Amino acid sequence: MRISELATASGVPIATLKFYLREGMLERGTVTAATRAEYGPEHLERVGLIGALTGVRGLPLAKVREILAIIDEPDADLVAAMGHGVAALPPYVETPTVTSERAASTARALGIEFDPEYPASAQLEAAIEGLERAGLAWDDDIARRYWDAVLPLAREELAPVSSMSDREAVAYAVLGTALYEPVILALRRLAHRRLAEDR
Amino acid sequence: MRISELATASGVPIATLKFYLREGMLERGTVTAATRAEYGPEHLERVGLIGALTGVRGLPLAKVREILAIIDEPDADLVAAMGHGVAALPPYVETPTVTSERAASTARALGIEFDPEYPASAQLEAAIEGLERAGLAWDDDIARRYWDAVLPLAREELAPVSSMSDREAVAYAVLGTALYEPVILALRRLAHRRLAEDR
Repeated sequence: MRISELATASGVPIATLKFYLREGMLERGTVTAATRAEYGPEHLERVGLIGALTGVRGLPLAKVREILAIIDEPDADLVAAMGHGVAALPPYVETPTVTSERAASTARALGIEFDPEYPASAQLEAAIEGLERAGLAWDDDIARRYWDAVLPLAREELAPVSSMSDREAVAYAVLGTALYEPVILALRRLAHRRLAEDR
Repeated sequence: MRISELATASGVPIATLKFYLREGMLERGTVTAATRAEYGPEHLERVGLIGALTGVRGLPLAKVREILAIIDEPDADLVAAMGHGVAALPPYVETPTVTSERAASTARALGIEFDPEYPASAQLEAAIEGLERAGLAWDDDIARRYWDAVLPLAREELAPVSSMSDREAVAYAVLGTALYEPVILALRRLAHRRLAEDR
């Protein structure tokens, strides 16, 4: 299809598609004439992915570019790729933070190894600091409650990875982390509402 | 304390405090002289809360203002207040969306009442649409997996509300929804990492 057809099929304006092309986020189509390039289903898929990350997920373009670079990297190591993917998600904090005592203490309480270099460690530190600043409770029992909710979920989420190639696993893990998060939050908000109504 | 001491105690620059005052987000201190006002611990708390919502949570100032207005409203109904609070969190979508078929279908599969007017319904719709655009899976079994993780958690989170006044319950529910979300996401990211390393 031509770029105008790609625009129609994706619902994304031509000017935006041209911007993605200039930024290297979208691969150029096959040139078929001096002023004409042909786009295929892989381009349509890519435009959908960019839309999901910028639109629904609301990530800044620079972060979307980082995520695309991770999944385009053929030789990526899964854990390293997941670390880079997580660093492209909010909260955006310097890694490692000068002190991440709260997160380290939580990790100890949960019996998990603490790696201050892993971006999610500094993100946990920032999240706990946010609770503290807002006067909301955080202690080992509360940490356990959240950990017990996310660990079995994370296990089910990552199960398909065992039958994937490294490249597939990276894309699945990085995109899955980013794009199931809004689902989890929306369902938790709906659960709160349902429970509050029963009050 | 004077505004300069409030700045020192909170770590927030005087110019920012003055901005909060102008915007009505922070109550003016007790005027003790023509050019002097006295601030107390409630001001320090409020500055911490604003910092948690803008900094860690990364909410736009307009949304922080909305959240503060909700918790400052003395006669708020809990469910209505939670709805307004949720609408101040991303993803920002028009409520109700023209169609929220995906979210309605998920709600049916989970056996929960679907209210398209509740902001989290449109947010769920947007989240599922994001998965679809990125080519990630969503079906009733997957929905059930997420619901089973968030519902018991939401129940534990809302338990303290039963012994609170309406006003306390509103602040707890609205701030808790906003500020435990980054904790949940950070812990899920850490759980993924731990499981990927075991792969």
